[in-house]
This record gives sequence, C-alpha cells and structure tokens, in this order.
Amino acid sequence: MTDKDFEMTPAAGNGLMDRRMFLGATAAGGISMLVAQPAAANRPAWTQTPGKGMNSYGSPSRFETDVQRVGIGSQAGTVGSGASRTPLEQLNGVITPSGLHFERHHNGIPDIDPDQHKLLIHGLVDRPLSFSLETLDRYPMTSRIQFLECSGNSGALLSPTPMPRTCAQLHGLVAASEWTGVPLAILLEEAGVKPEARWLVAEGADAAMMSRSVPLDKAFDDALLALYQNGERIRPSNGYPMRLFLPGWEGNMSVKWLHRIKVTSEPAMTKDETSKYSDLLSDGTAQLFTFPMGVKSVITNPSGGLNMSKPGLYQITGLAWSGAGRINRVEVSADGGKSWAQAALDQPVLTKNLTRFRTPWRWNGAPATLMSRAVDEHGSVQPTRESLMAGRAKGAFYHYNAIQAWRVGENGEVGNVYV
Amino acid sequence: MTDKDFEMTPAAGNGLMDRRMFLGATAAGGISMLVAQPAAANRPAWTQTPGKGMNSYGSPSRFETDVQRVGIGSQAGTVGSGASRTPLEQLNGVITPSGLHFERHHNGIPDIDPDQHKLLIHGLVDRPLSFSLETLDRYPMTSRIQFLECSGNSGALLSPTPMPRTCAQLHGLVAASEWTGVPLAILLEEAGVKPEARWLVAEGADAAMMSRSVPLDKAFDDALLALYQNGERIRPSNGYPMRLFLPGWEGNMSVKWLHRIKVTSEPAMTKDETSKYSDLLSDGTAQLFTFPMGVKSVITNPSGGLNMSKPGLYQITGLAWSGAGRINRVEVSADGGKSWAQAALDQPVLTKNLTRFRTPWRWNGAPATLMSRAVDEHGSVQPTRESLMAGRAKGAFYHYNAIQAWRVGENGEVGNVYV
Repeated sequence: MTDKDFEMTPAAGNGLMDRRMFLGATAAGGISMLVAQPAAANRPAWTQTPGKGMNSYGSPSRFETDVQRVGIGSQAGTVGSGASRTPLEQLNGVITPSGLHFERHHNGIPDIDPDQHKLLIHGLVDRPLSFSLETLDRYPMTSRIQFLECSGNSGALLSPTPMPRTCAQLHGLVAASEWTGVPLAILLEEAGVKPEARWLVAEGADAAMMSRSVPLDKAFDDALLALYQNGERIRPSNGYPMRLFLPGWEGNMSVKWLHRIKVTSEPAMTKDETSKYSDLLSDGTAQLFTFPMGVKSVITNPSGGLNMSKPGLYQITGLAWSGAGRINRVEVSADGGKSWAQAALDQPVLTKNLTRFRTPWRWNGAPATLMSRAVDEHGSVQPTRESLMAGRAKGAFYHYNAIQAWRVGENGEVGNVYV
Repeated sequence: MTDKDFEMTPAAGNGLMDRRMFLGATAAGGISMLVAQPAAANRPAWTQTPGKGMNSYGSPSRFETDVQRVGIGSQAGTVGSGASRTPLEQLNGVITPSGLHFERHHNGIPDIDPDQHKLLIHGLVDRPLSFSLETLDRYPMTSRIQFLECSGNSGALLSPTPMPRTCAQLHGLVAASEWTGVPLAILLEEAGVKPEARWLVAEGADAAMMSRSVPLDKAFDDALLALYQNGERIRPSNGYPMRLFLPGWEGNMSVKWLHRIKVTSEPAMTKDETSKYSDLLSDGTAQLFTFPMGVKSVITNPSGGLNMSKPGLYQITGLAWSGAGRINRVEVSADGGKSWAQAALDQPVLTKNLTRFRTPWRWNGAPATLMSRAVDEHGSVQPTRESLMAGRAKGAFYHYNAIQAWRVGENGEVGNVYV
C-alpha cells in the first residue's frame, strides 16, 4: 500500500482514515525504519549472559515503574478516605490489571481475616442465613468481564474552565475486570424473600460501614456476590474477601467488604446515599438514585499531557462503555466535531464492559481537536458537554458522561479543552 | 427447593446434577447456616478503626500469600532454565493474573531496556524493516483473550504409575490472558513478503536466543506481535517488551523477547525445534512440528491434594480448551466414566481461550472418580489416557491431552489416578 492509497480512503475530515484500512503501510507511511538487508539482529548485552530466575509472584519490568495509579488523595487527617485512579493512557486492551484498578474508599482498606468473615442475609426473608467463605465456595459461580465506574468519575470537567490534566486524572475512576462469584439471586432464593420485599441494604465491613440501598429487581437480575477478580481472590482494595457487584451501576453501590444484606420494603436512605451521589438539577431539585452509568467514551491516546513526536500516521484509541448494555458504535472526530469517522471495535463487545475502539489518523502537523462519541445498543448517544451542563445546577458533580475533547497543538502537545 | 427436588434432577450417576438446576437450595442443602433473625451483623475489629491508605500498585491480601506459582525448577547449575506453574486450583474464572502466569525459560529472563530493543524483519522480503517500541505504538492493534499452553504440560502423566500431585503440579503450564498487539500480517505486508517465502524464523533476545520456525500461513492468519498482557506492558517473564503470540499453538513457538523475524522458504531446524517438542511414536518414527494444542480439559476443583470437608452439595469446576477453536461442550463423570453429565460453560466461549465449566455434584461420602471430557467445535474429543498412550513410544513426552481422573476417597482426600 502506498502513500497514495491512504489519501484514497479518508473517513472524515482532518486526516481520519477508514477503520478497515488500518496500515499495511510501506516505509512511505513514515513509521518504521528501512534497513539494509542484515544477516542477523544485533546481539545486545542481555543475550550474552544468563537471565534471571523464576519467582513465585511476578511483577512488571523495572522500566515500567512509572505505570502507577495516579492522583492518590485522601481527606485531610485521613489516609484512606479518598481515591486513586487507573492510568488509562498507559494501558491497552480492556482488562485492567488488579494492581492498577482505581480505588475509592470511605474510611480506608480493612485488613479482613477471611476465616472470621461472614455474610449475613436477613430482614424480610423466610430463613435468615449466614455464609462463610468456605460455604460460598461450594455454590455455583459464574464469571463476567465488566466495568466498574465511580459516579464521581470525570467530575473535574464540571469546572467552568478546562483543567490541564491527563486522561487518568480526569477519567481514571473506571476499570474493567473479570469478576467471578455467586449470582446473588441464588442466595436470596435460598433465604426466601417475602412478598412485600422491594429493596435490600448492602453494608460493608470497613470502618465507614459503607451502605447502599439496592432495588431487588437488580439483585435478581445480574447482581453477583463477587469473590474473585481477574482469576485470583479479590484484593483488599477491591473488597477482599467479597463484594457486591452490580454490573453497569454506579461503583459505590457495588459495596466492598460486604458482610450484610438486609432485605427491606423501602430504601434505607443511608448516610452514604443521602450525603452523596445525588444530582443537583437546574430546576432546583435533586435527582436521587441515578443507578446506571450513562453511555460514555474517552480517547486514551493521544490524550492530555502526551506529546505527538512528529506528523505522520497514528492510531487513535480509547474506551467506550454504557451501564445499559453493549456499545453499538463509536465515532471519532479530528476536526472538533465537524465530521465523524466510525471507529473499529475490538471483539468481543460485551454487555456493560469497556469496549476498545481504534481508528487510523494521519496527523498533518497542524492543530487538531480530537473527540469521541459512543452510542449504545439502545440508541443512547453520549451527550455534548453543553447539553449535559444545561440540565445541571451549579455544584452538580456526579454522573458526568459528556464528550471529551483533546486539543493537539502545533508543537504536538495534547491538552484538555472544551468545545 | 427442597432436598427432594435435588433427587428429582440427576444428570448422571453418583450424584451429578443437571447443570441448569444449580442450587437455589434451602438450608436442607446443608451448605449455608440458618441463623436466628439478628438485628445486625457482628462488628468485627476492622470496622472499629480506620483502614489502610491507597497505594500506587496494589497486591493481594496478606491472607493469600500461599497463592503462588508452584513447582519452580531449573536445570542444575542454572537459575532460569526451567519452569514455574500456574496454581490452577486456587484460581477461578479464566483470566490468569499476570503474576501467576506459568513460566518456561531456556536461559533465564533477560532484563531488556525497551529503548534499546528493536524488532528486525528481514530475509525473503522486499524491504527489510526495523521497528522500535515507539514506532510499534503507532500501528493498529487488536486484543484477544486466549490461552497459552506449554507443549510439555501434563507430561508427568506419562509416568507408568500415577504420581500424587496437585492440579497445578500436573497441569499448571497453561494460562489465559488478554493479549494486545499489532497483527503480524500488517508488519509482514509492509516488509513485502517474496513469492517463494513459506516460513519465518522467530528469534528471542534472551541468552538462549530461543528460536522457532513458523509457517507463514499462521503468521498471516491470527499471529500477533504482542505488546500488552492483561492491560499493561507484557512482564519480563512473559517476553517484555514484545513477544510473538500464536493462538492455540504450542507455547514455546510464541517466542518471548522477540527481536528478529527472518522470512525463509524452509524451516530453519533450529536447536530448539530439533532437540525438543517432537513426539516419539510407537511405530519408531518421530512426529515433528505438532503445532496446535489438542482439545483438553481438567477439573480444577476438587483436585489432587484438596480435601472434601463432608458429604453434601458441591460445585465441580474446571477448564477446557482447544488449539483448534472454540469448546463446544464439556462432560463430567462422577463414576469413573460410566455415565456423563453435560457441564455449564461460562460465557462468552471464545476461540482458543480457556473455557470455565461447572456442574453441581452431591457427594454422598463414598469413594468417587471424577473425570471431564471436552469436545471442540470441530468435533474433536479429548482422548482417554489409554488411547493416547497406545500411539506413543516409551519416553514420549509432549502434547499430553488425555482425560484426567481424580479419586475422591472416603475420607474426602482427592488424588491423581489412572482409570
């Protein structure tokens, strides 16, 4: 494929190429380096001496120590009442390594002895039950690869002027894992839910005893009592030894360190669900219980704080998700929203999971504004910042899912902008 | 559901229940504990004081330190010429945490500086090319969740008498990850493969310079130049900063620390492919180049070295896979192969990936022999040990995919047996 072929398959303005083209480029593409026909590769130092031995639990390369959770912050006087963020722009694919899964704790990470931990199911049930970890291991389980997003994710974008932050700093309160556990419906059926029951209250065994009310319909739909994350036992920062997992719903409802489920007829209006997570609307009211996270996407590369080395061919890539189901399509713009090209989606596209999108882009060296827009299987379209803000009161903070714009400057520097 | 209902839905002999039943059990099922209706759960110590703070890269609970790679062994006089195994019976789901992915190295793990690492593509090509990591990051990528299995996995089962080993010790040279990278076809097309080319030789930058010949058809089919594993950069023990990934084919061909691809007309007959990985057959010949791994399954729980605490309901679970494509079904026997029940498969079932199967089992306390048998989408059936051994010469070692049998004793102890 020659340089000319690229020019024959534009998909939208300012250099966006057809997603089916991909590269297949010759050296004319200007990415790889043409070399004289060599007999063999160089023999660098590490081919000359035996390497290191094996170990019982591996870790990343010493050259990757800058790949860390970012923006770790806690309320004054506490060490564990705050958040850390997933470094989205340093990762690829959709699985988030458990060591880099974002955190949001309300009073730190408890150090739970699994042999002493019990899950109690009581309230409006025929048979109150207590489950040990050993007991739960004998129940039928299932696995699902799905996302978890904090309802406060991207809240910094409510600032009236755009803040010079990275993708992780702005959007890093989202991650995806393979969650394995017992469908909550099985445990509730065993306890026998009474006819008047409509809700449950889930309570964590942390020092905040974080608790949220959950409609029983969700509990019987796709809720999981999660015991494993990405193959191994859930880590302490994600709820060890067990957490509630409510696919697609705001993250804090997936109560970590779960030790109690009380079946009720009404929501409990716990401190956690009344003091936070409500959306202040422009008509002066507050919207309670916005459970499913809205359809959303963000370009992770290029993104804020990164630098394009020189004009030429690049791959624009990012993540899209919807709390309502599968992503149907993602569109990308390189001209600030004037024209849009459909991106390729990595397969399989799973319900309530992160979906990786990719589109080839020839950057001509001039300033450009990159945006992505996701549409889910129900036809819900990711809103513009303008339309989202129109419905929100000043000080509204949660459930921000508007289109993100990144400005690429003439010098190749990338920054957060509003369009 | 009452005790009686269970007895009404058997799926095969000796307690195997219908996979669609699952539990939904009352306390009569004998698993969970009925409790008096309490006002609230206990308030254990960790709810009384603030928990720990966040950190930049997380780790498992201190109560999970026994979850490690096992059977770490190296040839005498070396530290890195050997293997470690994935602790299959301690994991769940299908994703293997990267820290627990099995290892097989031929001269240790090189400590590669990614800024100095280059991939060379040369030989029968129009344009020899050199790729830096920065260059490759601009190419189109894709992600796939797929397994990797060492061709020597399960080799201990060729022993004439069954060895008292765990599932990990016997079968732990298999794992699954989300692999992300550049389709190799794109890079080969850019280099321009000459008409007479049929093979490539892939060489690693470790001290063994491990190298294997790969048919070009596979390279153009689904081969990946993998750069990321489970979201983050591939770890040193898995080929940092890049490896070849050949879905479904014997693991050593997915050359780690890849630094050279030479396109050729014939296989190179490298030291690695002539001294190892051939199958000695009963007719006195040796079978070279057995690339795709056979259809296979293993029950991970219960399995060798584990102990059933008492009679009652359990979940039998395990992993199935095929180098030829998707798993079509898995059957489980609790009576040594006299009768078989179809197991439930966790969704989605992906091509050339591990598939998690599960089936409920009521153990009556008497000795029982558990087996699993996988069938792939092409109708290939996992062979019995007897039929597999019939075709092999004494000393044959690789590509063992026969049905595994675990014997549950009257005391609940589980061990490896031949049937």
